[in-house]
Amino acid sequence: MTNKKARISLVGAGPGDKDLITVKGLKALQSADVVLYDALVSPELLEEMPADAIKLFVGKRAGVKCKKQEEINLLLVQSAFEFGHAVRLKGGDPFVFGRGYEEKAYAESFGLPVEIVPGISSSISVPLLQGVPVTSRGMSESFWVLTGSTRAHQLSKDIDLAMQSSATIVILMGIRKLPLIVQMLQDGGKQETPIMVVQSGSTKEEKCVLGDSTDILQQVKENQIATPGIIVIGEVVRTHQLFVKEKVLTEWNQ
Amino acid sequence: MTNKKARISLVGAGPGDKDLITVKGLKALQSADVVLYDALVSPELLEEMPADAIKLFVGKRAGVKCKKQEEINLLLVQSAFEFGHAVRLKGGDPFVFGRGYEEKAYAESFGLPVEIVPGISSSISVPLLQGVPVTSRGMSESFWVLTGSTRAHQLSKDIDLAMQSSATIVILMGIRKLPLIVQMLQDGGKQETPIMVVQSGSTKEEKCVLGDSTDILQQVKENQIATPGIIVIGEVVRTHQLFVKEKVLTEWNQ
Repeated sequence: MTNKKARISLVGAGPGDKDLITVKGLKALQSADVVLYDALVSPELLEEMPADAIKLFVGKRAGVKCKKQEEINLLLVQSAFEFGHAVRLKGGDPFVFGRGYEEKAYAESFGLPVEIVPGISSSISVPLLQGVPVTSRGMSESFWVLTGSTRAHQLSKDIDLAMQSSATIVILMGIRKLPLIVQMLQDGGKQETPIMVVQSGSTKEEKCVLGDSTDILQQVKENQIATPGIIVIGEVVRTHQLFVKEKVLTEWNQ
Repeated sequence: MTNKKARISLVGAGPGDKDLITVKGLKALQSADVVLYDALVSPELLEEMPADAIKLFVGKRAGVKCKKQEEINLLLVQSAFEFGHAVRLKGGDPFVFGRGYEEKAYAESFGLPVEIVPGISSSISVPLLQGVPVTSRGMSESFWVLTGSTRAHQLSKDIDLAMQSSATIVILMGIRKLPLIVQMLQDGGKQETPIMVVQSGSTKEEKCVLGDSTDILQQVKENQIATPGIIVIGEVVRTHQLFVKEKVLTEWNQ
């Protein structure tokens, strides 16, 4: 048992680029006694930790979870009591499909102080880094963020309603559900709505493909797009510089 | 005319707390020759600029815009050509209802290199800092962000669809539309859906009220909640520590 005061910081690491953590998140990391981190966290970011801080990997390897959520919750609390300042470093934002709220509630049930530091969510920043705004006047007045992997491992049922709206649709953890999404767009008469799929946004491994329901599956296959990735559906995708060029080129050739 | 290379960084400052800017955004600010900033940007953040950098305020004062968007676009481009590295520092995220895309497109039409640095959007972080996750398993599988102030100064028509879904609804710049929103909730049979209204989230002036369609207007009035603020509608609001306490207290008293 340490003499340091047990406390927890739930920190969003952002989408991947190590400099997209907040200043507040970086300060938390630099004062950590122990860090529990996910697979999506940049290895360079872990170098910001004090040299004697303990690193615990609690993410997925090759798609297989090393630890169940209940185990992570317990480990986080035990780490704080044993070592002092425990930082739970999560990809993106800790409160967007991140189960951060469950970790917070569990830790607080032990009377531990929990600080939450927001992170840059990939839902907004990954489109942005491709030059695509999730909202833009005259094109989209709102955006709707869904998960491709609910508790039942299903696409959120809200997608039907989202597709009827004028919102930009952003789907996280949904690449494996893309065939289903394409089918829904076609059934809903939205064959030509532009779609962008981005893998590993903001990192060196970033890949992006553009299309619509008629060709996006082919694009994803040809370019070997894999997880982790996000899907953006809506008119704003037309602002992507390559989308515009492709379109101009097509018209020129006609 | 300077010898420095003209370039532009569009940087999100985050919701208000100066340490909620990203490390990348801070670095851009520290290498700025000129900064154009909004009203929502923390004054402390401007102290991070080099001492000889030029500060230009282009926001609203007392609700009145000092400059039109077209004037800001032009000033940004002129500043880069005249001084070198021009940083456009915007509250929240530059691509969420921020007209950042218009600034980028305008600057690029002059051949200027434009880097975009995402910011922590108040849409996600302001609820988070109140302990309320925009998504949580079993409660909300998606979240939908809209503005109370579209180009036509109307509420988005998509709000009807969102109210039929399980989505958490987050409305930015919508406090003046709250009576209309309350009416829509009542008309849609959602009288008892929890509502949270937060003013000046993440700053020292932060205020928060909780309720539902039957009492939120009263709460807002009694607590003198004013702009800038955000509205959060959905079951996740029940996770707010005061919401839970109030509810328990009410049940206890019955």
